[in-house]
Amino acid sequence: MNAIAAVEKYLDSAKESQLEDLKQWLRIPSVSADPARKADVAKAAQWVFDRLSQLGLQTELIPTKTHPLVLASTPPVPGKPVVLVYGHYDVQPPDPLDQWTTPAFEPDVRNGNIYARGATDDKGQALTHIQSVAAWIKSGQTLPLQIKFLIEGEEEVGSEALAEYLKEHAAKLACDVIVISDNSQYAKGEPAITYGLRGIAYFEVWAYGPKQDLHSGVFGGSVTNPAIALSRLIAALHDSNGKVQLPGFYDCVVPLKDSERARWAALNFDDSKMAKQLGVSALAGEAGYSTLERRWARPTCDVHGLMGGYQGEGGKTIIPACAGAKVSFRLVPNQDPATVAKQFQEFVANFKQPGVRFEVKDLHGGPGVVIDPDSPFMKAGERAVTSAFGKSPVLMREGGSIPIVADMVQRTQAAVLLLGWGLDDDNAHSPNEKFAVEDYYRGIRASAHLWQELSQIVK
Amino acid sequence: MNAIAAVEKYLDSAKESQLEDLKQWLRIPSVSADPARKADVAKAAQWVFDRLSQLGLQTELIPTKTHPLVLASTPPVPGKPVVLVYGHYDVQPPDPLDQWTTPAFEPDVRNGNIYARGATDDKGQALTHIQSVAAWIKSGQTLPLQIKFLIEGEEEVGSEALAEYLKEHAAKLACDVIVISDNSQYAKGEPAITYGLRGIAYFEVWAYGPKQDLHSGVFGGSVTNPAIALSRLIAALHDSNGKVQLPGFYDCVVPLKDSERARWAALNFDDSKMAKQLGVSALAGEAGYSTLERRWARPTCDVHGLMGGYQGEGGKTIIPACAGAKVSFRLVPNQDPATVAKQFQEFVANFKQPGVRFEVKDLHGGPGVVIDPDSPFMKAGERAVTSAFGKSPVLMREGGSIPIVADMVQRTQAAVLLLGWGLDDDNAHSPNEKFAVEDYYRGIRASAHLWQELSQIVK
Repeated sequence: MNAIAAVEKYLDSAKESQLEDLKQWLRIPSVSADPARKADVAKAAQWVFDRLSQLGLQTELIPTKTHPLVLASTPPVPGKPVVLVYGHYDVQPPDPLDQWTTPAFEPDVRNGNIYARGATDDKGQALTHIQSVAAWIKSGQTLPLQIKFLIEGEEEVGSEALAEYLKEHAAKLACDVIVISDNSQYAKGEPAITYGLRGIAYFEVWAYGPKQDLHSGVFGGSVTNPAIALSRLIAALHDSNGKVQLPGFYDCVVPLKDSERARWAALNFDDSKMAKQLGVSALAGEAGYSTLERRWARPTCDVHGLMGGYQGEGGKTIIPACAGAKVSFRLVPNQDPATVAKQFQEFVANFKQPGVRFEVKDLHGGPGVVIDPDSPFMKAGERAVTSAFGKSPVLMREGGSIPIVADMVQRTQAAVLLLGWGLDDDNAHSPNEKFAVEDYYRGIRASAHLWQELSQIVK
Repeated sequence: MNAIAAVEKYLDSAKESQLEDLKQWLRIPSVSADPARKADVAKAAQWVFDRLSQLGLQTELIPTKTHPLVLASTPPVPGKPVVLVYGHYDVQPPDPLDQWTTPAFEPDVRNGNIYARGATDDKGQALTHIQSVAAWIKSGQTLPLQIKFLIEGEEEVGSEALAEYLKEHAAKLACDVIVISDNSQYAKGEPAITYGLRGIAYFEVWAYGPKQDLHSGVFGGSVTNPAIALSRLIAALHDSNGKVQLPGFYDCVVPLKDSERARWAALNFDDSKMAKQLGVSALAGEAGYSTLERRWARPTCDVHGLMGGYQGEGGKTIIPACAGAKVSFRLVPNQDPATVAKQFQEFVANFKQPGVRFEVKDLHGGPGVVIDPDSPFMKAGERAVTSAFGKSPVLMREGGSIPIVADMVQRTQAAVLLLGWGLDDDNAHSPNEKFAVEDYYRGIRASAHLWQELSQIVK
């Protein structure tokens, strides 16, 4: 029996414990955006540290100003490529809580899915690579190449601590290929390898008017209402064609290649199915682009939250002293988040409303990334995915951001493989987040094959 | 010693207990908009019921579907006018709590003011009339005319129970003149009688998009963002001249008279002083009108609160499933709140955003009112105010709404006197609401004179 056959045999026997492991991790409410959850975030780091350490990997728990980093490594294998697996143990806030069928941090398996905050983003997906390494080790096989793990705790809030760490310790993370599972298949049963990700530049913008809330009867009509001023600013962010109106926003955007557009058009993406799935009567977006193009390869602007004034029951008749919005721009490769931050600052500075002062807070950002689809690492990934899913993967780009990826690629000069085991309707960032149990197992199997496939590459 | 001299003598001796009474009432957090405060609202009703009852008035505590009404009456005086004093014992919500120097429901006297939610709006002002009646009674004088009290508990949320009561029991409230103190002097030491009030039509409007929050990376750019759609709707409510854009909104608006404009211009209102007081760099509003005209006599539209999406710390990358706003229109006499509600519904129905459904909730409304400044009741009011304040009152209109006033005027066919003892900077509806202790006492004195002056009117 060759190595991979022995590993596969082990995998067939380990499913129950693999699912139990995932449930354990998901029970820890590691919400990195919530200061009240700091201890839980640390607990989730400790959990994955313990897992990797118990497998015999050389493992470190690295404290940072915010949340710890977990690093681990199998022994070096001379002459073979070095892999760095990146993942994150932090999760999005679970609110609105009342929309969850079962509680966000009490994992529940039903209809073939495991439901919990972090199930797909990213505990479930990150764990596949740890389980596959465990399978090689526990089935008595020698891993055919060195695998490093880097699991961080603030992907959902900007990866600042990791960015700091990378500045000083890139050598420690030296590798030939970075493997990440934090995204999606093209569709159920249609696996994919993603070769492009959008970046992000995320802000809060506030409109400040009177020094305190005013009676809207006494003063209404004589001062600019900050909530209205803010709404006007937001309304001005797009033109009627859905183009973002920041000065210079599209200057660095590389136009889509005809070949890409043709390949994506051939996927026959079903707009009406997506609209139905999301519960909207129509899709909408930048004129002149298809839905896949809008989602995968065009920059955008979204508002994530509106704040200000009275939000309780009934009516309160005030002119609020201030109003704010959480606003982000999704960026495509070649757009620089710092430049977009300047453009947004400039746009807001030029947006005048008498008696209202606008203020922009830069929360976080990261550039997009595009990968060479013809590299040997991609080919190895295609073979590994095909082995586990029985189908060759779609080559796609994706709209989400993993801001730190571009940074890691730049620091390590490594290739990067984005192997998404999730699905678009997994409700990452929404209530009832889920991950198909079958895809968890297939991800583990594809990962186990990946080590074998990558080890064939001549350095 | 004539009656009024005896009353005045009593007033001089009663100041301490009068202030203590007010503090007692202010300690009860009777927030009518907050269902959790229902018991406290009832307690505030009981408090005023007890006061009036202890004075020997015929007093009723009338339960309603929501908050109770308190009715009281002194004995009839044949051949003399009947007065109805209207006030309210409910208060605005106290939030934002952290902006109060001393707690909202722990009255604190400093710098000559009493600070508490309800100090000026309306417990402090309403109580002046009860104290003046008390002074007549306790100084052994016979009240020269019949005074009825109607103190309600939901002025801040639309006076629905009182409106219902008026439909059935207008006869019980029969009177010749309604006296209300729920507004302001023109300025400190410049008393006023107000002969016009704006009305209001108050709504919530919601934009509904996808059936749940979506990951803004995965879906951003391909669906209309409800928070952006809502902002566009709000931005469309005014044109660049500050005109409200509802179809037909200005159709019924009676133009300002030249005489009114001239009288108000002669007040030499100081825009820059007001801007400084409010902490804004500039005032703003409907083109072609002065600040006083905009505040007192022009219809407006304001947004009181923005709701939707993620409002916590840090960044959450969602397209929110929905976003909402609290929106109201201030109305001038002759504008009908029901008509404006239809106009707003129509405006929203015609405002199209692909994949977004808008919904309007009608919260409450009431028409504006204008009073004849030459009636004998006004003249009596002017004399009473002059006696207490040492200065004849400014004849003004005011921007705030007392929605039920127009209804009461219509039901009783009575005249109405709006005698405001408050000040514009009393922070009604804002943190650190206050009422000048001196104006509380002057209000009581003016009220005591008012009963005498009104009793001179030949029916």
